Amino acid sequence: MGEFELIRRHFVRDEPPHPRVVLGIGDDAALLQATPGQQWAISSDMLVVGRHFFPDVSPEALGHKALAVNLSDLAAMGARPVGFTLALALPEANEAWLSAFAQGMFALADAHRCQLIGGDTTRGPLNLCITVMGEVAPGQALRRDAAQAGDDLYISCGLGAAHLALAWLQGEAWAQQAIGPQLPDALRARLERPTPRVALGQTLVGVANAAMDLSDGLAGDVQHLLTASGCGAVIDLDAASQDPALHALPTELRHRCAAVGGDDYELLFTAAPAQRAAVQAAAERAQTPVTRIGQITAGSGVQWQNAAGHQLSANWQSFDHFAQ
Amino acid sequence: MGEFELIRRHFVRDEPPHPRVVLGIGDDAALLQATPGQQWAISSDMLVVGRHFFPDVSPEALGHKALAVNLSDLAAMGARPVGFTLALALPEANEAWLSAFAQGMFALADAHRCQLIGGDTTRGPLNLCITVMGEVAPGQALRRDAAQAGDDLYISCGLGAAHLALAWLQGEAWAQQAIGPQLPDALRARLERPTPRVALGQTLVGVANAAMDLSDGLAGDVQHLLTASGCGAVIDLDAASQDPALHALPTELRHRCAAVGGDDYELLFTAAPAQRAAVQAAAERAQTPVTRIGQITAGSGVQWQNAAGHQLSANWQSFDHFAQ
Repeated sequence: MGEFELIRRHFVRDEPPHPRVVLGIGDDAALLQATPGQQWAISSDMLVVGRHFFPDVSPEALGHKALAVNLSDLAAMGARPVGFTLALALPEANEAWLSAFAQGMFALADAHRCQLIGGDTTRGPLNLCITVMGEVAPGQALRRDAAQAGDDLYISCGLGAAHLALAWLQGEAWAQQAIGPQLPDALRARLERPTPRVALGQTLVGVANAAMDLSDGLAGDVQHLLTASGCGAVIDLDAASQDPALHALPTELRHRCAAVGGDDYELLFTAAPAQRAAVQAAAERAQTPVTRIGQITAGSGVQWQNAAGHQLSANWQSFDHFAQ
Repeated sequence: MGEFELIRRHFVRDEPPHPRVVLGIGDDAALLQATPGQQWAISSDMLVVGRHFFPDVSPEALGHKALAVNLSDLAAMGARPVGFTLALALPEANEAWLSAFAQGMFALADAHRCQLIGGDTTRGPLNLCITVMGEVAPGQALRRDAAQAGDDLYISCGLGAAHLALAWLQGEAWAQQAIGPQLPDALRARLERPTPRVALGQTLVGVANAAMDLSDGLAGDVQHLLTASGCGAVIDLDAASQDPALHALPTELRHRCAAVGGDDYELLFTAAPAQRAAVQAAAERAQTPVTRIGQITAGSGVQWQNAAGHQLSANWQSFDHFAQ
């Protein structure tokens, strides 16, 4: 199977074109026509074998995750997905692997009406790079630099479950002790099949002030939002670590999973206290629960505390690909 | 140096924002605002170490080439570059390497007023994925499927020099014999620093019928254009192999370089014979010479011949990453 046959067989589908896609796969570039007046939100994420996923990960889950982490970026801007490009380096053209990968990717793409419009395939160590494009009304995007002192701070769903699953797979004693000898499918899915909060991002437009998605862990990621907005925060780690998947853990490990665990792909966002009812209504419209975990302050940095208001001495480090 | 410091130091620049870039590097996604009515042309290309470039290639040249091959795709559509994302997997954070890479990339980006708007950095085997965005008026893009029987077939500049340089670097006897013991810088540059024909692509809008860029070799690439357009072609390989860099080669090797050599990043395009003066005017406006190398026919496939009209028996194969 040659390169072009590979593309034709696994990535070119007989599907109705997205109304914004003028020209899809097959030319030097794809052509998109914006809805008049709308802006494009554009984001790229690269996934590397051995770094972002295990070599033996299910290809169907990998197809899902490669697109999910990109859709999560659109969600964090409040944008509606339109299309994406896929650049793929493969060590070999394995039919069964490609078929399952494409199945996982397209199932998620179809669920969000986000169309594959082009890309590249080459031989090399397994590497997936997706660039995703969505639309958002001018001035409406949920940026990182728009948090205000006094805002409530929220997360969608729960944090830390992906970290717990990863720790189990890596043979960490504390994780194996909490979970037992079998990794439940639902917990594995939290790591391998994250759910991008696309609907919530859109219902939060006009309600939230600032938003971002959590990929490298709350402790590090929130700092980017605070730095961009020139603010600080008080965060209740009991509130942030209520995910049922963490219930078997002692408090300190539960806190740790929620604070430093990566791969959650939940939204972190701020909204004025006057918007509490609107935030709940947005969460209900998106069928995505949200939890208030703290408040934005006029200072800088994060003050971590528990539900009783006792300060927690924490020196959480977020994941950094190039940390020494 | 951590991931975010790496990005800040090498990829965030104090530059006036492109008028179409509402929000650049630093948020979950970049925001672009289209010129009213214009369409976006979008293309992704991935470069893998050991596949698209040698591990010891000059990082400055690599920065140039990674963007050049993407700009070449915009050129082939007749689009004006606006912005690009860069996803980068690096085995290590090497300051000198990154600085030179960024220098090569930004020099070309600045020359085309194409702004880095976002991306991703991660650790992994060296891999560069760029997605580029440009603008083109609706219905004006130069597509592959628009060639007409009777059209003239043209190339920009010359073909085969990159292939000759590559063959020399790979130690092929015929290349070393033709070039001698030293690879001239100008010839090495044809492989490592291709020039995307961005200006020519734009001046050909409204003049050419169909266009594509040549990355995998004329013989294979032209077939994509012919298949998309439902046409055949007659190609004069003497005309296609006039690049001065090939003059030292015997005729058969000269033909071979022009027909199967990849990495040229020249434009291949068709235009009605009535447009010959307009094509020359477009080439002059773009300061990019073009050569008529043949004609589109009503049939299918390519008939290769020499300047005297003698048919050449050729079974050229284009580069295929997954060929058996």
